[in-house]
Amino acid sequence: MLLLVIYIIAITAEAMTGALSAGRRSMDWFGVTLIACVTALGGGSVRDVLLGHYPLTWVKHPEYLVLTCAAAFVTILIAKWMRHLRSIFLVLDALGLIGFTIIGCQIALEMGHGFVVSAVAGVLTGVSGGILRDILCNDVPLVFRRELYASISFVSVICYWVCIEIGLSLELTVIATLIFGFTLRLIAIYFGLEMPKFIYKDDDEQSASSKDAS
Amino acid sequence: MLLLVIYIIAITAEAMTGALSAGRRSMDWFGVTLIACVTALGGGSVRDVLLGHYPLTWVKHPEYLVLTCAAAFVTILIAKWMRHLRSIFLVLDALGLIGFTIIGCQIALEMGHGFVVSAVAGVLTGVSGGILRDILCNDVPLVFRRELYASISFVSVICYWVCIEIGLSLELTVIATLIFGFTLRLIAIYFGLEMPKFIYKDDDEQSASSKDAS
Amino acid sequence: MLLLVIYIIAITAEAMTGALSAGRRSMDWFGVTLIACVTALGGGSVRDVLLGHYPLTWVKHPEYLVLTCAAAFVTILIAKWMRHLRSIFLVLDALGLIGFTIIGCQIALEMGHGFVVSAVAGVLTGVSGGILRDILCNDVPLVFRRELYASISFVSVICYWVCIEIGLSLELTVIATLIFGFTLRLIAIYFGLEMPKFIYKDDDEQSASSKDAS
Repeated sequence: MLLLVIYIIAITAEAMTGALSAGRRSMDWFGVTLIACVTALGGGSVRDVLLGHYPLTWVKHPEYLVLTCAAAFVTILIAKWMRHLRSIFLVLDALGLIGFTIIGCQIALEMGHGFVVSAVAGVLTGVSGGILRDILCNDVPLVFRRELYASISFVSVICYWVCIEIGLSLELTVIATLIFGFTLRLIAIYFGLEMPKFIYKDDDEQSASSKDAS
Repeated sequence: MLLLVIYIIAITAEAMTGALSAGRRSMDWFGVTLIACVTALGGGSVRDVLLGHYPLTWVKHPEYLVLTCAAAFVTILIAKWMRHLRSIFLVLDALGLIGFTIIGCQIALEMGHGFVVSAVAGVLTGVSGGILRDILCNDVPLVFRRELYASISFVSVICYWVCIEIGLSLELTVIATLIFGFTLRLIAIYFGLEMPKFIYKDDDEQSASSKDAS
Repeated sequence: MLLLVIYIIAITAEAMTGALSAGRRSMDWFGVTLIACVTALGGGSVRDVLLGHYPLTWVKHPEYLVLTCAAAFVTILIAKWMRHLRSIFLVLDALGLIGFTIIGCQIALEMGHGFVVSAVAGVLTGVSGGILRDILCNDVPLVFRRELYASISFVSVICYWVCIEIGLSLELTVIATLIFGFTLRLIAIYFGLEMPKFIYKDDDEQSASSKDAS
């Protein structure tokens, strides 16, 4: 099944980006492995916990957990050659984003949820692994700052939904959504497209206290 | 039903404060929307996941999710006039805190839990949306530093519990708790009342290593 | 039952270390209590939510919640004498790590999961309380940086599993794992043993943007 192949590629690629993030923070091997697993499998886990969809993927298929741990160790070994593989990673990550989104959306639809919930499930599956990685590394999540990413996940859900509505078979829907979302993401990366930012400054005591806290 | 009206006012107000927080960190529109939703609906979601109370509110009523997204976009549009609305927000936020607390407490009681668990459920519903917002924005949660907030949520639970015990009807209990907690919160804001702080300093190697880590 | 005694000692000790962490950040009493509870009971809650093992321990036994709150208040009172108790705490914490690990592992096995999932459940129970504490205090989790900690939790799971496989009774297995893991942890602290670290630096635009974000 196409989606399974994409899923396995995606969790491997996400695990490796997670391991690199952990390496930037000089974590030990355990931290690297944990952050690799959270990045790869955290998105699906957040979705499943919020929807009450038990057992979680990695509980049912512990082999995925073993795969992400292996990917983390391979990353530690080949780290010094990784920067030459940057573009391959961006492509795999784009593939993973759309693959995760489709899987999340499908699971919510199979559980009988409507459009809003399946859109949230798709986007959450696509982006929350990266958000958890950034929280554990004590960063402001990159997802909120970089080129179109979550929004492409959202647009892919709409594409998926439209394809289903006009009566395409499940397989064609998956392929069409993959091609659509993947192309969009590559265009966004190539041209450095970004969402408009919302910048809010307040210059009074509330702001001062919130700066204190930061 | 009074509580439903307060709930809707509360999630709208919380969504707007979440959006402003995201704007202070210059996030893009997706980040603003996500943080608005987490601030407004995160408290209830944490409670429901911990108590195993499925489906979550926003899964059952996706219209609340749409409402918080709309509130986030409205906030982006009217942001420059927001600072003049400060006092209205503090009042709405106080209303929301007590409303969330009562709802959380009621749900735990309906599930058959006792006082301790219903108190935790009430306080969690009231404060954990704000905690999640601050974690995603990479702040030390404000809840732990500002005037009486979580403690008022806790005292409201006690008030609720006492009213039930002395045999008041559910409606009277809700109204009494709302007035009691809301008044307390306004007094706390007006006089800048704070919980005593616990300040601990250790000046040895453990402390040094923990400073390294921060 | 031995494990129950160890569990109670462990949550008390963990609650006190959590309270000290909160004190280092000058939080108010509510923050101290919440962080104490999260540190002590968060590991088990994460495990139970991920495995769908409801109700959570503290929902079923709210007395543990009361105990951790009491431990937090005691810590506030005796904080100035705490630094002289450092070594006692390290010992109690080591005991707790292994106790939590065994309990997590047992629960997963009782639910019918295999080795991989029970290992994850054991390690999660042992370490994620501390990870949540550090996220709430806005630190990079210490677990990823300090001497052998999570890895000892993992090795203890293997010891537990081997003891079960060779046919030891449950009681002997627990005692053997406790002695094995506890000794290992004391050795690691005494000699300052650390996991190898993975240090990754990239010096290009991606790195620059990720530094911006931090």
